[in-house]
Amino acid sequence: MLKIDLNCDMGESFGAYTIGADEAVAKYITSANVACGFHAGDPMVMEKTVSLLAKQGVAVGAHPGFPDLLGFGRRNLAASPAEAKAYVQYQIGALQAFCKAKGLLLQHVKPHGALYNMAGKDEALAKAVCEAVAETDESLILLCPASSKMHTAAKALGLRTACEVFADRAYEEDGSLVPRTKPGAMITDENEAIERVVGMVQNGKVRTITGKEMPIRADSVCVHGDGEKALAFVQKIRSALQAAGVEIAPLAQIV
Amino acid sequence: MLKIDLNCDMGESFGAYTIGADEAVAKYITSANVACGFHAGDPMVMEKTVSLLAKQGVAVGAHPGFPDLLGFGRRNLAASPAEAKAYVQYQIGALQAFCKAKGLLLQHVKPHGALYNMAGKDEALAKAVCEAVAETDESLILLCPASSKMHTAAKALGLRTACEVFADRAYEEDGSLVPRTKPGAMITDENEAIERVVGMVQNGKVRTITGKEMPIRADSVCVHGDGEKALAFVQKIRSALQAAGVEIAPLAQIV
Amino acid sequence: MLKIDLNCDMGESFGAYTIGADEAVAKYITSANVACGFHAGDPMVMEKTVSLLAKQGVAVGAHPGFPDLLGFGRRNLAASPAEAKAYVQYQIGALQAFCKAKGLLLQHVKPHGALYNMAGKDEALAKAVCEAVAETDESLILLCPASSKMHTAAKALGLRTACEVFADRAYEEDGSLVPRTKPGAMITDENEAIERVVGMVQNGKVRTITGKEMPIRADSVCVHGDGEKALAFVQKIRSALQAAGVEIAPLAQIV
Amino acid sequence: MLKIDLNCDMGESFGAYTIGADEAVAKYITSANVACGFHAGDPMVMEKTVSLLAKQGVAVGAHPGFPDLLGFGRRNLAASPAEAKAYVQYQIGALQAFCKAKGLLLQHVKPHGALYNMAGKDEALAKAVCEAVAETDESLILLCPASSKMHTAAKALGLRTACEVFADRAYEEDGSLVPRTKPGAMITDENEAIERVVGMVQNGKVRTITGKEMPIRADSVCVHGDGEKALAFVQKIRSALQAAGVEIAPLAQIV
Repeated sequence: MLKIDLNCDMGESFGAYTIGADEAVAKYITSANVACGFHAGDPMVMEKTVSLLAKQGVAVGAHPGFPDLLGFGRRNLAASPAEAKAYVQYQIGALQAFCKAKGLLLQHVKPHGALYNMAGKDEALAKAVCEAVAETDESLILLCPASSKMHTAAKALGLRTACEVFADRAYEEDGSLVPRTKPGAMITDENEAIERVVGMVQNGKVRTITGKEMPIRADSVCVHGDGEKALAFVQKIRSALQAAGVEIAPLAQIV
Repeated sequence: MLKIDLNCDMGESFGAYTIGADEAVAKYITSANVACGFHAGDPMVMEKTVSLLAKQGVAVGAHPGFPDLLGFGRRNLAASPAEAKAYVQYQIGALQAFCKAKGLLLQHVKPHGALYNMAGKDEALAKAVCEAVAETDESLILLCPASSKMHTAAKALGLRTACEVFADRAYEEDGSLVPRTKPGAMITDENEAIERVVGMVQNGKVRTITGKEMPIRADSVCVHGDGEKALAFVQKIRSALQAAGVEIAPLAQIV
Repeated sequence: MLKIDLNCDMGESFGAYTIGADEAVAKYITSANVACGFHAGDPMVMEKTVSLLAKQGVAVGAHPGFPDLLGFGRRNLAASPAEAKAYVQYQIGALQAFCKAKGLLLQHVKPHGALYNMAGKDEALAKAVCEAVAETDESLILLCPASSKMHTAAKALGLRTACEVFADRAYEEDGSLVPRTKPGAMITDENEAIERVVGMVQNGKVRTITGKEMPIRADSVCVHGDGEKALAFVQKIRSALQAAGVEIAPLAQIV
Repeated sequence: MLKIDLNCDMGESFGAYTIGADEAVAKYITSANVACGFHAGDPMVMEKTVSLLAKQGVAVGAHPGFPDLLGFGRRNLAASPAEAKAYVQYQIGALQAFCKAKGLLLQHVKPHGALYNMAGKDEALAKAVCEAVAETDESLILLCPASSKMHTAAKALGLRTACEVFADRAYEEDGSLVPRTKPGAMITDENEAIERVVGMVQNGKVRTITGKEMPIRADSVCVHGDGEKALAFVQKIRSALQAAGVEIAPLAQIV
């Protein structure tokens, strides 16, 4: 039976500040990318998030980012590969402590924001991120786009990888996302977005922004849990996939 | 053969800022308390410190502190027990990632500064710290003063404990340190300090500030590595202990 | 004509994180306490908040707090008076830069959270805070409770002061707030709260938790803008005061 | 009489961490660039630094940087112009508070590290930095290289500007510094460096790395105060300039 994972960012609150509707979205996803205190999240939030995920049976992943809480980790930072590696190791370890306390194993690592984008394109940074994952726990799965430098680096190191696709984003012919600044970058029609996801999962293909059919590896769909609309969309994707005979399952059961 | 551990704070540099002479002192000690990024230290510094310790054969311990880099973790902060617990879990986990990468096991945890002092006196905080240690890794040793609430809480939880003594500090009759603000708090004469340490280790006794002999458990001596004088003092304590037939060994071989 | 100021905390958002409904509440208040980046707020938020206040004609005050974003400045921190003084100077200056850019004069300073509470009771801290205000701009008004050490210290330094009262809190006989942990600390009945405020403003008196009438100086009422209920309450207090013939005016027109 | 300013970074310590030999170098310079708490410095350090400068008669400048203490503000950060503007305003204001307390006027602003480099090349960032300076205090001098986008933007806004030159760096034909990665970037011979500085100040000319003579505006020489060698070099430059009949004077007396 065809299987797909649904992954969502979580644990992005910080101190008195709240972001996301973690309890609500946890019911519909199979893997969570938990912020680790650098771009978002804090130790108390991590503890609560891992507890929630344990209770809901959602697999836990680390979502390491740049040390830029003020910019939510979304701003490119000229960190060296050695710095990026150490940041990723640190954040994975920190989250593992909370998993250990709940008797859970950390399932995967998905870099966040600017680190995800930069390591997707920069070979040295991609290698640094993958080494960080491998050296901290060689059984971890790296979650990234199939077309990214991270994917290549992870395979070269012998890391397990899972490839994620996006429901609401258009693709270039090389498999990269169309930049948000270009027209047509976002798939704004919900039905079209859902159809595309089902197609990517069932057929392993997607139509690029230039109109060509392109093969694409889809182990996981990245979804969002902030706001009622996002939440409703997650439920729709989930239902559409299940209606198409696809099983929703955590990454570890897929790759 | 009588054994004693020498422990020293390490990895307290941060970014472009340097504190301590880690390379020099690593030659003379058996256990290091490594800062974990909250009151001092950063991921790059932690990586370098663990590498250095691996090379020198010094056992690695976590030195978790309050999130107060500006105050170097020395200022009392009214964190709740739940907050303190999460802070300690986070920091232990972060350091474990670097140990794992070097094939080392984390040996012990010694809270830092204000957290050490507050958890030494406050039962709820002591319990929180000890639970953090136990839940993250039940084989870890808690390093603390024998007279502290942390010692009691650790024993109640079944944690392994090691007790540290201070060469340059006077003791009250209840085993607590004489506050620095009181006359006689510091043992300023080097020879007297060394004699006291050798006495504590060999006889398990120390003379209190009131002049009474008091039993004291000494598994480790806390030493300092900042400055040439401190470094020379570590060497003298080490030599004096060896001359008295005491073996210098890491905590894990003692408790 | 009797006048009263309504003050509210503002600009507490940080980066991607939002707290408060600043635009909504700005319509009903006369003075805003703007977070300055230590416990909340950031430079972009400060710029936007001061712009909003300039547009709405609300007087701007600084709301300096402890450097504890993680604890929202609500946790007691054992900062020395010299540290607290420097923190307050720094934050006032930072906010003044944004006021200057909009052609506004900073009106007042109201310490935040744990700093407000600690400096309310500790003479040395109170003096440090007041010196910080006086040395940065001697025309600033210190906004604090009449019964606090800050009030005494401000008067001793010749600072202008304004005294705030709380609608939803009970008072002890010494003019201090009943701690939230004690029964009866909160005035939960809205009508009672509003009546108390009108009474404090019109008669300069309030009934203590022990049932005695006590004189109280009320230059400003502290209100909250987070949530629809809080916002509705601000409007009710405002209407009730106006119905009682009290003019709502910024602090600078009152003291 | 020909005049030149000597400027040096100062106040870069943070909490328990020390960088620089501020007391020593303050004797030889005329303008100090004081860190403002984002990339280095903290409120206590700023207070002490401004006190020292007031006592030594050294003019005070702000040295605003990116919010990256971990990277000492040396790493490029993709901050938007609006963010950079707000960061600069905030930091200038914060430092002005300490100047005000000592009865000093802030003399100039010199952006730090990556912000200095990025705003030197990026027009939008340069404009943002200059607007921040102008809106906070239109009498401030912007200290920057003559060839930078900041210089152009400052002149367009009507800001006073001062141009700095470097003793130990080679110049490209367009007036920019030869990148450190290229051979010949550093002038390692002390006598050559001193001769070049005296030449730039006396003749307004410098030989580029390609061997051509190029006009260069020199209002200030950037010097360093970290380490004994740097300190000795400052004294030598100072003596050589004075021997050549050049008066050492703060920026405000020059531009």
